[in-house]
Amino acid sequence: MITSADYIQRITGLKKNVFMGGALVDRNHPGILPGIRVVSLTYDLVNDPVYRQTLTATSHLDHGTINRFTHIHQDSRDLLAKQEMTRLLTRKSGFCIQRCMGVDVMNALSVVTREIDDVRGTDYQRRFLAYLKFWQEKDIMGSCAQTDPKGDRSKRPHEQADPDAYLHVVDKKADGIVVRGAKIDITTAPFAEEIIAIPTRVMTPAESEWALAFAIPADTEGVYIVNRASSPRERKHLPAPFAEYGSSDGFIIFDDVFVPWERVFMCGEHEFAGRLALLFALYHRHSYTGCKPAVTDVIMGLTALAAEYNGVAKAPHIREKLAHLAGVAELVYAAGIAGAVRSTKASSGTCIPEPVYCNVGRRHAGENIYHEHEILTDVAGGLPATLPFEDDFFNERTKSLLEHYLIRKEGISAQDQHRLFRCISDYNCSSFGGVWQYAGVHGGGSPIMETIAIMSNYDLELRKKIACELAGIEYSI
Amino acid sequence: MITSADYIQRITGLKKNVFMGGALVDRNHPGILPGIRVVSLTYDLVNDPVYRQTLTATSHLDHGTINRFTHIHQDSRDLLAKQEMTRLLTRKSGFCIQRCMGVDVMNALSVVTREIDDVRGTDYQRRFLAYLKFWQEKDIMGSCAQTDPKGDRSKRPHEQADPDAYLHVVDKKADGIVVRGAKIDITTAPFAEEIIAIPTRVMTPAESEWALAFAIPADTEGVYIVNRASSPRERKHLPAPFAEYGSSDGFIIFDDVFVPWERVFMCGEHEFAGRLALLFALYHRHSYTGCKPAVTDVIMGLTALAAEYNGVAKAPHIREKLAHLAGVAELVYAAGIAGAVRSTKASSGTCIPEPVYCNVGRRHAGENIYHEHEILTDVAGGLPATLPFEDDFFNERTKSLLEHYLIRKEGISAQDQHRLFRCISDYNCSSFGGVWQYAGVHGGGSPIMETIAIMSNYDLELRKKIACELAGIEYSI
Amino acid sequence: MITSADYIQRITGLKKNVFMGGALVDRNHPGILPGIRVVSLTYDLVNDPVYRQTLTATSHLDHGTINRFTHIHQDSRDLLAKQEMTRLLTRKSGFCIQRCMGVDVMNALSVVTREIDDVRGTDYQRRFLAYLKFWQEKDIMGSCAQTDPKGDRSKRPHEQADPDAYLHVVDKKADGIVVRGAKIDITTAPFAEEIIAIPTRVMTPAESEWALAFAIPADTEGVYIVNRASSPRERKHLPAPFAEYGSSDGFIIFDDVFVPWERVFMCGEHEFAGRLALLFALYHRHSYTGCKPAVTDVIMGLTALAAEYNGVAKAPHIREKLAHLAGVAELVYAAGIAGAVRSTKASSGTCIPEPVYCNVGRRHAGENIYHEHEILTDVAGGLPATLPFEDDFFNERTKSLLEHYLIRKEGISAQDQHRLFRCISDYNCSSFGGVWQYAGVHGGGSPIMETIAIMSNYDLELRKKIACELAGIEYSI
Amino acid sequence: MITSADYIQRITGLKKNVFMGGALVDRNHPGILPGIRVVSLTYDLVNDPVYRQTLTATSHLDHGTINRFTHIHQDSRDLLAKQEMTRLLTRKSGFCIQRCMGVDVMNALSVVTREIDDVRGTDYQRRFLAYLKFWQEKDIMGSCAQTDPKGDRSKRPHEQADPDAYLHVVDKKADGIVVRGAKIDITTAPFAEEIIAIPTRVMTPAESEWALAFAIPADTEGVYIVNRASSPRERKHLPAPFAEYGSSDGFIIFDDVFVPWERVFMCGEHEFAGRLALLFALYHRHSYTGCKPAVTDVIMGLTALAAEYNGVAKAPHIREKLAHLAGVAELVYAAGIAGAVRSTKASSGTCIPEPVYCNVGRRHAGENIYHEHEILTDVAGGLPATLPFEDDFFNERTKSLLEHYLIRKEGISAQDQHRLFRCISDYNCSSFGGVWQYAGVHGGGSPIMETIAIMSNYDLELRKKIACELAGIEYSI
Repeated sequence: MITSADYIQRITGLKKNVFMGGALVDRNHPGILPGIRVVSLTYDLVNDPVYRQTLTATSHLDHGTINRFTHIHQDSRDLLAKQEMTRLLTRKSGFCIQRCMGVDVMNALSVVTREIDDVRGTDYQRRFLAYLKFWQEKDIMGSCAQTDPKGDRSKRPHEQADPDAYLHVVDKKADGIVVRGAKIDITTAPFAEEIIAIPTRVMTPAESEWALAFAIPADTEGVYIVNRASSPRERKHLPAPFAEYGSSDGFIIFDDVFVPWERVFMCGEHEFAGRLALLFALYHRHSYTGCKPAVTDVIMGLTALAAEYNGVAKAPHIREKLAHLAGVAELVYAAGIAGAVRSTKASSGTCIPEPVYCNVGRRHAGENIYHEHEILTDVAGGLPATLPFEDDFFNERTKSLLEHYLIRKEGISAQDQHRLFRCISDYNCSSFGGVWQYAGVHGGGSPIMETIAIMSNYDLELRKKIACELAGIEYSI
Repeated sequence: MITSADYIQRITGLKKNVFMGGALVDRNHPGILPGIRVVSLTYDLVNDPVYRQTLTATSHLDHGTINRFTHIHQDSRDLLAKQEMTRLLTRKSGFCIQRCMGVDVMNALSVVTREIDDVRGTDYQRRFLAYLKFWQEKDIMGSCAQTDPKGDRSKRPHEQADPDAYLHVVDKKADGIVVRGAKIDITTAPFAEEIIAIPTRVMTPAESEWALAFAIPADTEGVYIVNRASSPRERKHLPAPFAEYGSSDGFIIFDDVFVPWERVFMCGEHEFAGRLALLFALYHRHSYTGCKPAVTDVIMGLTALAAEYNGVAKAPHIREKLAHLAGVAELVYAAGIAGAVRSTKASSGTCIPEPVYCNVGRRHAGENIYHEHEILTDVAGGLPATLPFEDDFFNERTKSLLEHYLIRKEGISAQDQHRLFRCISDYNCSSFGGVWQYAGVHGGGSPIMETIAIMSNYDLELRKKIACELAGIEYSI
Repeated sequence: MITSADYIQRITGLKKNVFMGGALVDRNHPGILPGIRVVSLTYDLVNDPVYRQTLTATSHLDHGTINRFTHIHQDSRDLLAKQEMTRLLTRKSGFCIQRCMGVDVMNALSVVTREIDDVRGTDYQRRFLAYLKFWQEKDIMGSCAQTDPKGDRSKRPHEQADPDAYLHVVDKKADGIVVRGAKIDITTAPFAEEIIAIPTRVMTPAESEWALAFAIPADTEGVYIVNRASSPRERKHLPAPFAEYGSSDGFIIFDDVFVPWERVFMCGEHEFAGRLALLFALYHRHSYTGCKPAVTDVIMGLTALAAEYNGVAKAPHIREKLAHLAGVAELVYAAGIAGAVRSTKASSGTCIPEPVYCNVGRRHAGENIYHEHEILTDVAGGLPATLPFEDDFFNERTKSLLEHYLIRKEGISAQDQHRLFRCISDYNCSSFGGVWQYAGVHGGGSPIMETIAIMSNYDLELRKKIACELAGIEYSI
Repeated sequence: MITSADYIQRITGLKKNVFMGGALVDRNHPGILPGIRVVSLTYDLVNDPVYRQTLTATSHLDHGTINRFTHIHQDSRDLLAKQEMTRLLTRKSGFCIQRCMGVDVMNALSVVTREIDDVRGTDYQRRFLAYLKFWQEKDIMGSCAQTDPKGDRSKRPHEQADPDAYLHVVDKKADGIVVRGAKIDITTAPFAEEIIAIPTRVMTPAESEWALAFAIPADTEGVYIVNRASSPRERKHLPAPFAEYGSSDGFIIFDDVFVPWERVFMCGEHEFAGRLALLFALYHRHSYTGCKPAVTDVIMGLTALAAEYNGVAKAPHIREKLAHLAGVAELVYAAGIAGAVRSTKASSGTCIPEPVYCNVGRRHAGENIYHEHEILTDVAGGLPATLPFEDDFFNERTKSLLEHYLIRKEGISAQDQHRLFRCISDYNCSSFGGVWQYAGVHGGGSPIMETIAIMSNYDLELRKKIACELAGIEYSI
């Protein structure tokens, strides 16, 4: 296992291919650093005795101790540990821990490379295991590039006017393949060392060229990342961990990129494209049942403090709102536990969480995120939206006046009052806050995607049969 | 283990003390029979190979095979099995299986009788185990009598103008105690063999006389049951299982009833009154995570059939509604799984489910029940409310006309159309349906009770600490 | 204007053609009387000085004073008065006042008969005005028969295997037409004197035979009504107005019924079928903005009393729930006011309410009805579902015991406690209550019908234009 | 009436007393200009023939033509016109038009100054009318300063440790009074010419010194504004009106400020403090019924365009969401119409809207704003949160790549695609967007304030009486 210093050194040593704000930028650009700091937590806390047990695992390859973010889940305890790890770390960063994409896509690949081999007699599992070994040894931070631009959404990949609307193979050579296209909305793009591209949907036989999975270093020739970084406004006087963290989402463009065969994990086996796409989504939604409860932990903590500072902590309607937040957090977490407990084993030996529980959990999270922000807003009152800028609290002419009029409850200092409402303001009234509302709805799959996943996994016929029996109707499909 | 025939024989052999509709009635009164039929499922399906594994358990007293409804849960697998049993049986009756009260109160007593002994040096656990042995051997159907009339809700028990507002001890004798008061809203009252009375709330030192738990045969001298029976309108021509089932809720009045000491499990140990009250509620809410998903299974089946019969089964808004129902069912079920998986062991060895998961699960169920009925109503259309009475479909002058105009989709006969919408009408447009909406909100504890239970078990300070750390505020309680 | 005695005499003098419970029944059958009592309010309160002003109008035909339920609205004040009348009367019956169907369909016909004449040069308006004169002079109680059985909902009328799935003309003669088919879900069918049939949807040129509107006496040869009556359980000891009222919904079957030309208002003019269907729906939804707030008035009153009797009237969460009910009532009522204020005049001179306001009002009502019942249930607690039957409160052996344990708050007698919870039980835990939940969703058009009506009347392009302008995009359709 | 050029000249001519970002700044600071641009619309569109009719009024003082933002409403048509004006203008700015505070507080003062005179024999109405004349002649842009810091919310003003927690009189002189304290969360503070301070709550006799209303120029000696400006990120390449607009919220500090008697409108008449506070809130909530529907118009337009650009405009779930938005907009607007139609006249002759309608309207708006953002987010998909920065679309190396992969639907250019999602990103993923979510909940009064206002104006006893009558209970208070 490496340290965050190692990670940062490796990341900043990559070739420059990240664009932001109209310029080619370094990976330690101040806008990107907040995201790097979040990922650093996953490296550093592994050495903290409080977290070590949960954040490490035993590799099934060589029984070495590894960072759990590089582990292939062997049983339901692994899934439970991953869920718990995700919650613990998300509580530290205050939002998305960002490294789960890597572990989720690796687990999905571990299953599907074997399943393709089972049917097609290919060699993908061997390649994957070699790649996994590298990944575990190097303690890699990787990103999963799944979402294609998709062009005209009413048309399938092979019907698009522009074949690049979905990432595809444009050439196959003796030593590898050449790919063209883009992946959009890719969180962590500028601070991932490896990019693992997988399909975004089911593919038909006519779409073999788009049935594609591979891994490449993030600075491979022909790869361009156009990045959007998000983080709270920087602090000058009152530093706070929350204001140090942030994220990046990028368009990753593959401009005729060469991928050696050893790094190719699917190429043309269209019948497995949907399996891989959905399996990554499933692992990712299970991760969501770990991170989302922690997001609610944070919202709940801010809400409870705001209520306390506003002197209404004991009011029944506050308790009701807090209980609602607890309900959202724990129903989602329970769904993840149930998904782990009812998991199954793939032919590769990898443990797969039960899909219905993971999907009802993620869906419930997505349907509640705006309401959770609303609760915090409601309890906080208008101040987070109107709080003067930080500097005004440190300008000689306004400092004492502002502090005089900021004081609310006895025993709460003006500075703590300031710190709390500054943090809520960062949470709710910032571009960063808006980005994370979007992530709360769409990250890991929008509610409508979970609706589809639920209905395709749920035994609706069983329910119709139960109803028929009660109604005295002979059941028949 | 006995059969339903044995059970019915025993029940109908009890002394007459049930009043209904202004008269003293037999326990096999046609209004009461539908409830007896539901409980009979719990005796009969135990012999069905499909259910046997789940519905039986191994007694920890003598390792005999017993009906799981008489079992004391020894580990989380027992809790998972009870949850599954409850869902399976509820799918058969279409609603509340009604026998869970007994197993839930017995488990709560198994814990608390020992805890009182631990502190007070009393003899309750021995008495309880003797009673449990009888219970398991006889395969008893018991009711838990918890809710007191409560008089003026703004006053505590000892402040009431009427001391009988809560059930209490009025005399202690050498051989037993005399109790007076009532328990209201008691489901299964007229078809339970044993009544187990427990406190409904926390009691203070001034309230020792109300800190009371005991078990008596349902036809003990001085016990009167004033019953309200609910079931769908009886069928003449188109029998259907759903129309055969029903329930009863009774006022149980204790008019100076003698209870021998061997049947007394708490008498004056006020500091354990709340523990027992909440522990029964906890087991019952865990049971709820089994039955409520089955209720949703039924609503979902009826909704899916109605959509099919109405020719809109494939419409996206129908899929969305069905997915929502699946979400409610499986989030509640997942909460029960998590409650079982995260259970703990009491000093008695009994396994106690984790309270937060059970309460967020029950609360989610209670908050959704009206909306679930709304979905069925919405998809069914107006017909369940306007469907002519059964007899009109069998009157020579109207039969063929009604059948002519009832036909909707090709391939669905008039009779199946009739049966389905009759069943939905029974479900939604009957006194029985209204009673079960109430049960959906209040049975096992209203949402507000779960809110209280969640907030008293949830680590709010942890969340405030997390928020303080992120905001850069020094945390202190 | 007539009295209710006159109305009842006329109704009971009709030929017997109502079937219920498998038999041909009199129109004063005890199941039907509760509905007749509701309609009687519309005749009797017209003589009450408190109501007279609102319940009467001046006929635009002859300037005579008429019951407002027979009036053609001449301006927005008429629409406001109708809305107010509907709210006042619904407060008296506790639910649907049932006579609005007549006035709503007559207003729709007043518009469309003229519009057909305008285009087709027909003679419908003259016929209609002659019929209106009769209607106003006789103070007629009429029913609007709109909903057809519809058969396979995925097919249009002319595509149905059974041409009778929609009511249609089967013969045209010199003196009139012969019609065949049925109308289902028709509220008031057995106690309306006149039945006015109109189309249920838009019709295409291929569907001229289904483009049909006419009026006939309810006991016309060939008309059969198969009725379903709903009302609370009858009282023996504690009469209450709410328990006296009820409703009926019937299948009206037209078994080759002859209609003289003077009573025919549309016959083949398919391009006006949708106009008439939607216009009736519009008037009816405007009526809904009057009755639904009164339904909420009742729910709110019951909820407030239950809170008071339960001793929690001052609790903040109760105030919050009551305010929510007030919000539902007054938003819906405001929508009706806005619909009236922004009304327009048809070529016939009839005043037509603005459709968007009426539809958003009705939709909001439909989306809230289950939640309103839930609020009452929540605040009432479990008692309405478990309250022993009325007779047990008057049986010598149980009377005093029940009264003893029913008492809650000081100052509230056992009888008032009984009366209130009996009424809530009638409201929520009765087949009648279930029927009115259905009516709350589907009566006057389901939320999905209002969604369609809103979107077909709303200027979506205007909103897109506004957004384009703000975004700096050139707007084009 | 003046032009926006006049307004800007006057505003920028004020003495410097605005602090922002730690410095004393000019009023035409680039952060403040976006707010000034919004207010400018109210001056400029008055000359546009499309708007002139609605945006002007006839002064009741001298019958001159005035900007409606300076008018005292004389009848319900004035209220309807103000509501319409507010909606029209808000559609132009895309959010809060910001000038309504002035007209709302002036109307409230017009009523209360007269009511105090009526009871106390004071001279306030004369002073007010003189001030109104100045206001109308100069076409003043004024801000209403209502919200006090409030200190410890569990204590009343006179119980606070710090008397300055509520703005108060510290000295009375022959020529005027001296006031101290602050008003917080004051929208438009840095670009209002006049500041009108009024009480924030009911005051008791012990609180006469806090019962205070007055008007002063914004740059009066001793007045300091500490401002927070909010607006979308500035555009370099693709200017759009939405990105030009913004707002400011300030702490206004009154550091021993002298107010001449002619500008004092309440000083010690504590029994009118609550009246004035609530009356301003009422007028402001009525204004809200005009602006909020326009906000929904914008959200709806963006949602409809996003659906179109994403190729799902015809999907039923999109229509459903759009209809829901229409429902929110028009129920709120209908509430304002009803509030105007049911208005009453004060002793001063000013027209006062009906409070229940205004409050249920504002409350419905506040309860839906987060859900409306959620709908836009849901339909837009993830792109607004991940869209690269504007400059990257104009960097030579990334321009064509980004455009290539941005294209979705045939017929929509990359630039329009960019413009639309940039605008949605500005709307949802900006600090500005977060501020306006807060304003949507708290601006003009939080839902809980409306709950209180509804319950204090609603005739709950009438509803209890209706329920008693139906239940057969004798009604008594």
